[in-house]
Amino acid sequence: MTTLTRSEHDLLGFRDIPADAYWGVHTLRATENFPITGTAISAYPHLIDALAAVKEAAALANEELGLLAPEKAAAIVTACQEIRAGKLHDQFVVDVVQGGAGTSTNMNANEVIANRALELLGHAKGEYQFLHPNEDVNLGQSTNDVYPTAVKVATVFAVRGLLKAMAVLQDSFGRKAVEFRDVLKMGRTQLQDAVPMTLGQEFSAYAVMIDEDRSRLDEAVELIHEINLGATAIGTGLNAPAGYAEAARRHLAGITGLPLVTAANLVEATQDCGAFVQMSGVLKRIAVKLSKSCNDLRLLSSGPRAGLGEINLPPVQAGSSIMPGKVNPVIPEVVNQVAFEVIGNDVTITMAAEAGQLQLNAFEPIILHSLSESITHLRAACLTLAERCVDGITANTERLRATVENSIGLVTALNPHIGYEAATDIAKEALETGRGVAELVLEKGLLPAEALAAVLRPEVVAGNGAPAV
Amino acid sequence: MTTLTRSEHDLLGFRDIPADAYWGVHTLRATENFPITGTAISAYPHLIDALAAVKEAAALANEELGLLAPEKAAAIVTACQEIRAGKLHDQFVVDVVQGGAGTSTNMNANEVIANRALELLGHAKGEYQFLHPNEDVNLGQSTNDVYPTAVKVATVFAVRGLLKAMAVLQDSFGRKAVEFRDVLKMGRTQLQDAVPMTLGQEFSAYAVMIDEDRSRLDEAVELIHEINLGATAIGTGLNAPAGYAEAARRHLAGITGLPLVTAANLVEATQDCGAFVQMSGVLKRIAVKLSKSCNDLRLLSSGPRAGLGEINLPPVQAGSSIMPGKVNPVIPEVVNQVAFEVIGNDVTITMAAEAGQLQLNAFEPIILHSLSESITHLRAACLTLAERCVDGITANTERLRATVENSIGLVTALNPHIGYEAATDIAKEALETGRGVAELVLEKGLLPAEALAAVLRPEVVAGNGAPAV
Amino acid sequence: MTTLTRSEHDLLGFRDIPADAYWGVHTLRATENFPITGTAISAYPHLIDALAAVKEAAALANEELGLLAPEKAAAIVTACQEIRAGKLHDQFVVDVVQGGAGTSTNMNANEVIANRALELLGHAKGEYQFLHPNEDVNLGQSTNDVYPTAVKVATVFAVRGLLKAMAVLQDSFGRKAVEFRDVLKMGRTQLQDAVPMTLGQEFSAYAVMIDEDRSRLDEAVELIHEINLGATAIGTGLNAPAGYAEAARRHLAGITGLPLVTAANLVEATQDCGAFVQMSGVLKRIAVKLSKSCNDLRLLSSGPRAGLGEINLPPVQAGSSIMPGKVNPVIPEVVNQVAFEVIGNDVTITMAAEAGQLQLNAFEPIILHSLSESITHLRAACLTLAERCVDGITANTERLRATVENSIGLVTALNPHIGYEAATDIAKEALETGRGVAELVLEKGLLPAEALAAVLRPEVVAGNGAPAV
Amino acid sequence: MTTLTRSEHDLLGFRDIPADAYWGVHTLRATENFPITGTAISAYPHLIDALAAVKEAAALANEELGLLAPEKAAAIVTACQEIRAGKLHDQFVVDVVQGGAGTSTNMNANEVIANRALELLGHAKGEYQFLHPNEDVNLGQSTNDVYPTAVKVATVFAVRGLLKAMAVLQDSFGRKAVEFRDVLKMGRTQLQDAVPMTLGQEFSAYAVMIDEDRSRLDEAVELIHEINLGATAIGTGLNAPAGYAEAARRHLAGITGLPLVTAANLVEATQDCGAFVQMSGVLKRIAVKLSKSCNDLRLLSSGPRAGLGEINLPPVQAGSSIMPGKVNPVIPEVVNQVAFEVIGNDVTITMAAEAGQLQLNAFEPIILHSLSESITHLRAACLTLAERCVDGITANTERLRATVENSIGLVTALNPHIGYEAATDIAKEALETGRGVAELVLEKGLLPAEALAAVLRPEVVAGNGAPAV
Repeated sequence: MTTLTRSEHDLLGFRDIPADAYWGVHTLRATENFPITGTAISAYPHLIDALAAVKEAAALANEELGLLAPEKAAAIVTACQEIRAGKLHDQFVVDVVQGGAGTSTNMNANEVIANRALELLGHAKGEYQFLHPNEDVNLGQSTNDVYPTAVKVATVFAVRGLLKAMAVLQDSFGRKAVEFRDVLKMGRTQLQDAVPMTLGQEFSAYAVMIDEDRSRLDEAVELIHEINLGATAIGTGLNAPAGYAEAARRHLAGITGLPLVTAANLVEATQDCGAFVQMSGVLKRIAVKLSKSCNDLRLLSSGPRAGLGEINLPPVQAGSSIMPGKVNPVIPEVVNQVAFEVIGNDVTITMAAEAGQLQLNAFEPIILHSLSESITHLRAACLTLAERCVDGITANTERLRATVENSIGLVTALNPHIGYEAATDIAKEALETGRGVAELVLEKGLLPAEALAAVLRPEVVAGNGAPAV
Repeated sequence: MTTLTRSEHDLLGFRDIPADAYWGVHTLRATENFPITGTAISAYPHLIDALAAVKEAAALANEELGLLAPEKAAAIVTACQEIRAGKLHDQFVVDVVQGGAGTSTNMNANEVIANRALELLGHAKGEYQFLHPNEDVNLGQSTNDVYPTAVKVATVFAVRGLLKAMAVLQDSFGRKAVEFRDVLKMGRTQLQDAVPMTLGQEFSAYAVMIDEDRSRLDEAVELIHEINLGATAIGTGLNAPAGYAEAARRHLAGITGLPLVTAANLVEATQDCGAFVQMSGVLKRIAVKLSKSCNDLRLLSSGPRAGLGEINLPPVQAGSSIMPGKVNPVIPEVVNQVAFEVIGNDVTITMAAEAGQLQLNAFEPIILHSLSESITHLRAACLTLAERCVDGITANTERLRATVENSIGLVTALNPHIGYEAATDIAKEALETGRGVAELVLEKGLLPAEALAAVLRPEVVAGNGAPAV
Repeated sequence: MTTLTRSEHDLLGFRDIPADAYWGVHTLRATENFPITGTAISAYPHLIDALAAVKEAAALANEELGLLAPEKAAAIVTACQEIRAGKLHDQFVVDVVQGGAGTSTNMNANEVIANRALELLGHAKGEYQFLHPNEDVNLGQSTNDVYPTAVKVATVFAVRGLLKAMAVLQDSFGRKAVEFRDVLKMGRTQLQDAVPMTLGQEFSAYAVMIDEDRSRLDEAVELIHEINLGATAIGTGLNAPAGYAEAARRHLAGITGLPLVTAANLVEATQDCGAFVQMSGVLKRIAVKLSKSCNDLRLLSSGPRAGLGEINLPPVQAGSSIMPGKVNPVIPEVVNQVAFEVIGNDVTITMAAEAGQLQLNAFEPIILHSLSESITHLRAACLTLAERCVDGITANTERLRATVENSIGLVTALNPHIGYEAATDIAKEALETGRGVAELVLEKGLLPAEALAAVLRPEVVAGNGAPAV
Repeated sequence: MTTLTRSEHDLLGFRDIPADAYWGVHTLRATENFPITGTAISAYPHLIDALAAVKEAAALANEELGLLAPEKAAAIVTACQEIRAGKLHDQFVVDVVQGGAGTSTNMNANEVIANRALELLGHAKGEYQFLHPNEDVNLGQSTNDVYPTAVKVATVFAVRGLLKAMAVLQDSFGRKAVEFRDVLKMGRTQLQDAVPMTLGQEFSAYAVMIDEDRSRLDEAVELIHEINLGATAIGTGLNAPAGYAEAARRHLAGITGLPLVTAANLVEATQDCGAFVQMSGVLKRIAVKLSKSCNDLRLLSSGPRAGLGEINLPPVQAGSSIMPGKVNPVIPEVVNQVAFEVIGNDVTITMAAEAGQLQLNAFEPIILHSLSESITHLRAACLTLAERCVDGITANTERLRATVENSIGLVTALNPHIGYEAATDIAKEALETGRGVAELVLEKGLLPAEALAAVLRPEVVAGNGAPAV
């Protein structure tokens, strides 16, 4: 009968580890110490891949510098490649919310990679005398440079997914801008009828907002390409020999295909979370805009009879368990909620960043957690908004045109012809009597009929000014 | 010719003080060290009064315990009473945002009171050998018990003003609830037409919200009555003799008329800002509700022609520099903005409270500042909302009734009679064809005409369930 | 061969449902519409149980009022009891972040219960002609009263878990307060040496903070006992017959054992999220205090040689992948991170509450999500802090006493004897020369030796003032 | 005897205006409607100047296009130039927190400029038949393009002030980095002793942080140069003739010296507050870093005897009213508080931006208010931190070196020589016995004495890696 556990030790003593586990004693301690969310770091596949990429790059750099035997390096590299191909992710079991600046995540990676490499070398798991999690897999590294570097690489890939989803949503709004380019409607300021515009202009604004946000996100993700690999514990590079930082960066850039650069001041880079705060700030900006757009969509589609009823959102599910036939704007509503979550996450990230002390920020795990949540949820929100809502929006063209023709806001166009004060009197009388602006202007002889008709043509009123996307 | 300055010294050396200034060298240093907002603490009259009350209470307690000569005590008490009567407030010149846990505010008070007391005793300002800011006015005290105590007393008085303003607003909504009790309208969920209700029910909800918030505020202000006077530097009561804490509390309660209690654990009370966090949390709750109510008022009054147009807010100013006759919901809008400010202030207060270390929170000045701002701005917002908006709201009764009669939402009332699935079919057909619910039910013979009429009577549909305030 | 799907329809048409699924078409739509987090509502067992309890109570009320046939009621009740016993939780598959004010969660419950009840009655799943998700399980109900009621019941049970964990942590701190009652140390204000105290007083403060927070949480959870069951769609109680609200409340109180009360104004109660905002505000307060306490623990245990080194946290894992023997304060660190998350969640909840419009808040799902996360993570944080950190803390008694004996802060105790100004001179000289306070006082003849010894006895200096818990 | 008032009217009727007031009836209404903060917009001189610049540019554009008579244009231009020279600022009396998207601010400017221009033309104030606030001063404009444009111009100038102050602070830290370049100390991670570094490296990191933040702020302010002048009410440019937008932009660029550009999509630009959200996000980032740096300074200077005592902050005032000789880190503390305020303001701005609806954000006044506060307070904080704290910092060099020589963290440097596991054993024994690392290594014969000395030389340990700024 074979044993079902193996024994490992750390500075606290010996512990039994399930024989088939690739993780070891450090990971075991962490799972016991942090029973917080019940969600393991394997929930972030981008992070697991990025950790493997960093470890692979480090092994190659160490081999290159003659610090790691080629056969050990080869085994580590293969193990990392397997992980990056999707294997062994279930061995990354420490909680997403954890103390210790990511040490447990790094240790988990070191142990899984070491044990897989040991297998590849023909040894049993746990025979660390042949290849050691800390002395070989973590050689020349510290959690304090490995972890932030991996978080950055993971974030870059996650953001790329978000950028694509934003482009999908932008296109969706853009197509509607074209479709609705001739649909006249009343513009509103402060929820009060203002002056005419087209529904196309309205949707075009949503497309432009996303376009601008994509630019901001592009800029923010660029900052994330600056890494501190080679800094080791506090940025002084202790135990990382000359040439290591550059070699590791080069290999990591090669493996990931990302134009990574090493920070000029590694002490600063090791303690600073500014790039994450900036990223979160931009995600918050995106959330604010998305939420505003969804608020508008819900308002414009309010009704069907007692609301504005300007547009129709495609029905995607029954809206009520009690009110038959009711259809609700559930897709914009879920996007609003994601936006609120992202805004809350920004506060969490802000506090975590502010709490860093001296040479390190110990709270990067919650920064990673919140950032990942914000990015992936925003991505899902953009896609579902595009595909299940915006793409299917239709306009109530006749109703919209009627509000323009019936509006008092047209009087604004008369300012240059009859003056602000006379126009104010017309507007006031129209409101009090329920009569039309044109009718009153003619009655008072303020403008001849033809001139008036030319000025008040809605297309003209709405027409100049704002080019489509 | 007399000199225009007097000389004072502290541990950093000698400085010239304007001869007519009641404040002294410690205050001078603080004004130089904290040139942050340009707003002096005299902007919080409640705080100045509270500081004077605390100093008066301490002097009486010290006299009672035989630690302060009666003539000194009398002079200090008179000076404090003058301040509480509104005098010398312009001598409280340190910036509202300051380092040092309120030390500069306390020192400013000590110096002003000492110099005024010196005058009363026939001495010149600055002749501290006769009555000393620290040794006499601050006797048995520390900033760390004086300042939080004064902030609490000031907050109680400020909150009372807010509670009164909330009562005014509640009454205003309550009167409208009565006035509109028979005005039928469509209720809405998720901005979609739901089922009928009365406008009175809608306004009643706003009144009830405020009523509940007042209860929460009453509870929160009760916690503020717990003080740490007598704790001195860190809560151990060093230099405050036996009996001092109780005597000072008793005098302060007498002076202020407040049922103050001394905290059971003074070490805890001296470092803890929980009561302020709780207060700010309740202010945030109030802000959330006020903002929601104002959002509703703006939405219900949208139009005048292309909006919901259910109610009319009283015009209070011209709404636009370009659009003649436009009237905007500027009063609810300003209330929304105050709400956003209060919610932001809550984050500031939260961070400041979290940043406290060991035996003291050094960041109480920003807590005081943010809390004062939230309370006084909310008070102003409630009053202006009541008096310049809610009191003058009128209803478009006919338009509201028409939306009910024309609504599809009435179909919900048929559920118990024809079932959810059949009702769904009716709703769907009504929506697609633009026809009426009753008409379709009759056409399909789902219910006889009289039964249908009885079920669909709007008054019945809206009637049961929700009592007015 | 039997078919593997069944067909169901809603207002959008027919869809195939897996034959063995207890959920139906409404749930299917929701899973397609909200692919946001990948976490199903089954992640909140308290919520699933609460939903079943509400449905059970409603069935009993409907049966009592003669609206639901006894055999249907019995089947529904049995299905609900099974769910409350832990069965079928895996059938609650809609995403935790969803549009629609909880409609999809309610529908999911209606469908699962209906299909299980159908089985119990000898019918196949999907044969809704015998027992219908909406017409029977949801009878007299709306998402808008069922969902908030279930959320409240679930929250009460979750909070109870948190309260227990807080009591564990309070006891843990309290035991240390007793253990360290005679350990003298320097108290600090603004991180500067202040005056002596005992380590027991320091730990006592942490215990008292939690005790006060428990009281606040008790108050906040009381508000959560007010439900709006019977309000139906918007609070007017449409389709809920007279007596239903009270009967349902009575049954729900019986099933849950909670002293539930029905809100006085159901229109208000249906749209208001004030109780959730209040609850979150109190959770934030708890987070602030916990975080402050953990900041202190980390600071006091800093070292081992270049830090304060006043206390030792028990080592729970190796602290570094590069620095041998390093042990880090990972347990307090994880608690800090949970605190930051809770504070961020409070902003999310605030925004969601503020965004409610007219008769309903459509954003309750994110409120539930954030609130659940805050409560359960805080609970885990309290337990892990107590058991893996506080319980094992030891004091470096000798080092602590030495800092007191060597301190300049002792000079404060001389104020009443030699005055603030003379004491300031002594302090300054001690700082500049590195000499001791007592030595200088004697040298200058300010106090005779015996008197001085009596005044400066550390036990006396620290002794009065702050009673232990 | 002359009259002391003049009469003006708006759509609500006639009101008496003080005869010497340059503001008119619209301003009067606003002061009555918004009694919120008691602070007038004159508190933002940059905004007043920017409003005058916009009005001047518009007048020049209108004259150029033949829409405004040259003599009117000249009078308006002169009035604006006077304002920009600092005159008439006291006439800008509306509250900083106001409803209406800035309409009252714009109206206030229109009225003041019109009345001053009337005087210049030889007319009395209020004789609007000769030159009208809306028809002439506001010609071709709307609040909705004037106000955001002015806010942006004002923000650019305010940010320039902040950038300069940041440069001062960066230089201050930079000089200390040079001064302390040879001061060895222990680096710390997670508040635990880590590995050696220099105090110069520590201060260099603070300088680099600010440098990076300046770059981010430069980028953010660039976005603020995009204006929507010419958009008029909703971005369609109604009433602004062809060529106006470009002419006005050109003149405004000339007047301000700023490279302003007109937004490509004016509908989007008129409703979007993204650039303000971005700016606030960057200010929050700056606040986070400043706060972290100040936390460090307070920690490193803790003591004087029972703290870390690594550096000394220059004393700037007496620290305590009770503890003689106590000096506190009041300057870093006030900076922390400003940081908390900026972070809270960011939440306010976020909520205000999210609340925008349809074609306009009505809540820009609170955005302006919060943004101005953040920028000006951060500027003051940077200057006071540089001048009253950082410039005077000194190091306790001997104490610092002793902590290095005595440290266990040196063992990390042995990893490459004796392995992580052996090093862990050494570290553990050193901790338990209080003995030195070198001593133990020699005793166990792990390394020969010379090799050990070479490895453990602190200068070497700290030396490689992080270049100074």
